[in-house]
Amino acid sequence: MNGAESMLQTLVNNGVEVCFANPGTSEMHMVAAMGKSDQIRSILCLFEGVCSGAADGYGRMAGKPACTLLHLGPGLSNASANLHNAKKAGSPVINLVGDHATYHKQFNAPLTSDILSLARPVSDWLQVASSAAELPGSAADAVYAANAKPGQVATLIVPADAAWDSSINPLATQTLPAIPKVDNQAITGAARLLTNPKSTILFLGNMALTERALKFADQIVQATGVKLLSDTFIPRLARGEGRCSVERLGYFAEQAEEQVGGINQWVMVGTKAPVAFFAYPGKSSELYPEGSTLHTLAQMNEDAEDALQRLVIELDASSFEPRKKVKNKPEPGIGELNPVSLANSFAHYLPRDAIVVDEGATAGGLCGPFSESAERHDWLGLTGGSIGYGLPAAIGAAIACPARKVVCIHGDGGAMYTIQSLWTMARENLDICVVILANRKYQILQLELSRVGAESVNDKTLEMMDLGNPDLNFVELAKGMGVSASRAETAEQFNEQYAAAMKKSGPQLIEAVMP
Amino acid sequence: MNGAESMLQTLVNNGVEVCFANPGTSEMHMVAAMGKSDQIRSILCLFEGVCSGAADGYGRMAGKPACTLLHLGPGLSNASANLHNAKKAGSPVINLVGDHATYHKQFNAPLTSDILSLARPVSDWLQVASSAAELPGSAADAVYAANAKPGQVATLIVPADAAWDSSINPLATQTLPAIPKVDNQAITGAARLLTNPKSTILFLGNMALTERALKFADQIVQATGVKLLSDTFIPRLARGEGRCSVERLGYFAEQAEEQVGGINQWVMVGTKAPVAFFAYPGKSSELYPEGSTLHTLAQMNEDAEDALQRLVIELDASSFEPRKKVKNKPEPGIGELNPVSLANSFAHYLPRDAIVVDEGATAGGLCGPFSESAERHDWLGLTGGSIGYGLPAAIGAAIACPARKVVCIHGDGGAMYTIQSLWTMARENLDICVVILANRKYQILQLELSRVGAESVNDKTLEMMDLGNPDLNFVELAKGMGVSASRAETAEQFNEQYAAAMKKSGPQLIEAVMP
Repeated sequence: MNGAESMLQTLVNNGVEVCFANPGTSEMHMVAAMGKSDQIRSILCLFEGVCSGAADGYGRMAGKPACTLLHLGPGLSNASANLHNAKKAGSPVINLVGDHATYHKQFNAPLTSDILSLARPVSDWLQVASSAAELPGSAADAVYAANAKPGQVATLIVPADAAWDSSINPLATQTLPAIPKVDNQAITGAARLLTNPKSTILFLGNMALTERALKFADQIVQATGVKLLSDTFIPRLARGEGRCSVERLGYFAEQAEEQVGGINQWVMVGTKAPVAFFAYPGKSSELYPEGSTLHTLAQMNEDAEDALQRLVIELDASSFEPRKKVKNKPEPGIGELNPVSLANSFAHYLPRDAIVVDEGATAGGLCGPFSESAERHDWLGLTGGSIGYGLPAAIGAAIACPARKVVCIHGDGGAMYTIQSLWTMARENLDICVVILANRKYQILQLELSRVGAESVNDKTLEMMDLGNPDLNFVELAKGMGVSASRAETAEQFNEQYAAAMKKSGPQLIEAVMP
Repeated sequence: MNGAESMLQTLVNNGVEVCFANPGTSEMHMVAAMGKSDQIRSILCLFEGVCSGAADGYGRMAGKPACTLLHLGPGLSNASANLHNAKKAGSPVINLVGDHATYHKQFNAPLTSDILSLARPVSDWLQVASSAAELPGSAADAVYAANAKPGQVATLIVPADAAWDSSINPLATQTLPAIPKVDNQAITGAARLLTNPKSTILFLGNMALTERALKFADQIVQATGVKLLSDTFIPRLARGEGRCSVERLGYFAEQAEEQVGGINQWVMVGTKAPVAFFAYPGKSSELYPEGSTLHTLAQMNEDAEDALQRLVIELDASSFEPRKKVKNKPEPGIGELNPVSLANSFAHYLPRDAIVVDEGATAGGLCGPFSESAERHDWLGLTGGSIGYGLPAAIGAAIACPARKVVCIHGDGGAMYTIQSLWTMARENLDICVVILANRKYQILQLELSRVGAESVNDKTLEMMDLGNPDLNFVELAKGMGVSASRAETAEQFNEQYAAAMKKSGPQLIEAVMP
């Protein structure tokens, strides 16, 4: 058994079932090992950013890692923007990055580069397997690291000779890392703040956004009267009918200030105190008033559900019945297709147990609030701010949950970063409906331009944020990659196309032309 | 004048005329500065890998740097595969990478990452401008570094506050770095090897591949009878009618061995001794026999033309008339469209002074040899092995040389990495004909699979190298981005479409369906 085969079997023995692959020559033995195995599903992507974004989406929905298969430094670089998002999301991901044979590196062949330096910023765990004998052990360590809660990006660099040389036997199933529980002081400290007379925010993120965690949070809110908020960008949130509600902190500092102004006690669960996404001249980076009392109930990697449950007991709040949302869908939009009508239609037709992958940016900003009490669903957000995560993440979610409809709401500008995703959706016949919000500009930048105080807004400047001239035609792009597609220019057209897509299975793209 | 404005004017004062941009919020002041200036052309790209590949192509043809405008760590990551190629090509490129304001970095906002670590492997020169006052000086240093011959990748990280704060005046035009000349020992040493009785190779790369350098090399060959070879992958080569010939070292080690077997004296000009692209089990990495005598006439950064000219004098070879190629085009291909017929047609219709951007991979392998004596042209190759350079590089070449036809020969697999390039071609109405070689597989990998000795070649393995199911439709992809396109399935169809494209101006794509 060569290194690649023993590595792969070790991964399989530890629960890895899926590989999102874009291999090259230096990965051929790993490709051959996957070809021989019937225990791993290999999914070809036409660009490495699709692989990494898909692994992110898969990790969020499956709760365990898929692996990516990447070709040396450039392959890793192409994957890195979405690895950045995955790392910020706390998604479990294992990257297998092929490298030149150990003895070949000294010759500085064209594809040689410093992979470690490229990998470090996008990896929580990073190792080079320097021989075939080491490779199964490194694979076991990688899968262990990736499974540390909430999840980590583990990158294993595999020199070609470590893959092709003879190796030891695969390693057996190992016990995965336990999730740390918070100590009692974290609970009692939180209880003290929540019950003193000052106004307080209970601020949730990451693992505190499960259906169960939200029930506990709601009991706490009922018992104490504090305000409940979540991070702006969340890896995964349980929403809709039957779930308890949580308000999202606004993206723009001005919105956030309105939500939290004057509240200077913060209890964080699964996240840290909120900061502005970008800096703006003369504005504070922190979104909480100076001198606020900050208390962390649970760090991002700690057991937030357990902490909230213990806090419920500490506060004697068990008797409060969690206020589950009653289904209350908006009517479908009518007339002009715009952010309001689109969000109404989106929410109205959203099927039960859908997975919503949100990279809707400005034009999609109302889809969240309008679907608050729609059919129950999971919501995946853009955690690292690097656009082009949505289409790939939809692939990963669909692979992880083949019985559920995936709806991907995507800005047109962001969609072009990883547009190659559509081909993999077609090839794997994934049950994904992509809604492209085609306002034909980088609208967020036009908004941000004035907010950062860059005063010169002439035509030449605006052109750098304009996606017209020529207009992108997403219907043709989709057809070019084998995905059936249509264009909606009115709310009625959108309703017809979107309702039909919700009823049938398989990939579908709707280009929603917006003002 | 703010930092962004003073930085930009400093770049302009030092010859920078073009920016390939994909900006975000942290770059808004740089965008505004460009919007105000009429001395810089800003070209929007829909993905950062297009920006960096375009800057590479521009640098190779203009002989001076363009800049890229990139959005923090993820934007740089997306650009990095083509920066890797640019760095290996010795192309002059200046990256302007926006970052969070200096005081905002500590808060670890979603887009925060270790940009320095990401940038180091793809940069020859790297600096953070830590204040607005420093920014013009850093810009001057970046443009100086980028202009060091043959060219370097210079990356300047620009925190948002360094861009928006008040700065000093722009710096004036500076003297650019001189190109080092080789010492006399390099000349006399080369002459000794070339005139002793052993068989010898004169091995050219990079700056030794200009029209003028090739004339000197031809005189040397005539005087000494040595064999003349060039690197396999070259940044730019002067070819066709009126130019002197040079044979290219084969990609596969087996080909290379046939070309150089037994020759154990190597004189390198503008390059280093050749090594295999990848390692293969049991095969040597070096493509020259063990114990060979290696002599460097000129390093990659040294003046190769001057060194060759002095060597001509040393060898008393000035009286030899350089053997310029006489035009000898193949007839257009007929019948089945395949690598042979396509290469014949490509070469037959190639117009005078075309720029050929080659990412033809396996299916395009004959386009080079068949156009050896076609109309004179320049040839740009894939220097770093990271696929997806061709379409962007064609953009850069077309911007640098608007009066010349650019022909981009591209494999279908590689084209998908940076397919967004087509939109910029349409938007800027660039005179580029893209020929997609649609064999619907990663053919090079199918070849490499057996060469690396990965014995298991079953359907599941081959599927990971197969681009069918569904077939990509490049005609629809091109139309979706505003580029006029057609499909050729026979040589006659290809001839008609390609000949017509050569006669008219503007972007055009031909999908050449190949076996």
